[in-house]
Amino acid sequence: MSEGVEWAIHCCMVLAVLPEEATLPAERLAEFHGVGGPYLAKHLQALSRAGLIQSTSGPRGGYRLARTAEEITLLDVVNAIEGQAHAFRCREIRRRGPVAGAPEEYRQACVVARAMRDAETALRAQLSSTSIADLNRSVKRDTKGRATVATKRWLADVAR
Amino acid sequence: MSEGVEWAIHCCMVLAVLPEEATLPAERLAEFHGVGGPYLAKHLQALSRAGLIQSTSGPRGGYRLARTAEEITLLDVVNAIEGQAHAFRCREIRRRGPVAGAPEEYRQACVVARAMRDAETALRAQLSSTSIADLNRSVKRDTKGRATVATKRWLADVAR
Repeated sequence: MSEGVEWAIHCCMVLAVLPEEATLPAERLAEFHGVGGPYLAKHLQALSRAGLIQSTSGPRGGYRLARTAEEITLLDVVNAIEGQAHAFRCREIRRRGPVAGAPEEYRQACVVARAMRDAETALRAQLSSTSIADLNRSVKRDTKGRATVATKRWLADVAR
Repeated sequence: MSEGVEWAIHCCMVLAVLPEEATLPAERLAEFHGVGGPYLAKHLQALSRAGLIQSTSGPRGGYRLARTAEEITLLDVVNAIEGQAHAFRCREIRRRGPVAGAPEEYRQACVVARAMRDAETALRAQLSSTSIADLNRSVKRDTKGRATVATKRWLADVAR
């Protein structure tokens, strides 16, 4: 799992507590996370391409979520950043060597590929069961509200 | 998921149908899969280090499973080849920037890390629910016994 997934999730969590209708410039998101703007930019673009966040241009331009935080799951973010390719790619090893069968024997996917896909399905199901809103509720609980209040206060100053 | 996982699973599946007490030289496993011996060697060594297969030396030397095919799960093989490190590594992004809290606020793992670990746990649980023996039963069913019989016949000729 690439580092970009972690940054992207944290960005969504911040955008989720923006005041309604407000937007946050990319450089403010970078400042919030203490990271360079260019590094974050590519992940924000990926989130935008995937339809999870949207950008507005102009003097009041910036990013905001494209749907509610309840409607953005961790699977959505992982897919946006990593792409939807399977983590396991079958190389059809079964068709090689002296014991290979006739082509019609291989209509079904290889048993190894099927088992690995089942595991990926379990991973994706778990990722899709958690939303950005769930994570923010957990942060609120973990920090007894401190981080949530502090983030909202900071956003009130810098959001457009 | 690295290509090595796929090769390693296929090697275990072949070793699982070796006649009892027999061993199979690494070069025969390579031949069976139509792949170069040196490429396979590193994965066989990883399986051996993890205690899933064992090698015997001498003129009758070769590899065999170190435990029954029922007792080797896909998780065992993945851990042997990929290591047991978490796929998601938390970089403690929450502690950065202007809204970071006091150190004691961070005693628990970050909510993002916890959610990602839950997803990994689901993946691992699924991988551990399938054994090498399960895969071989599926191959037998898929090929109406053909591949299993052909493999055993080939092994009878070349196993030591």
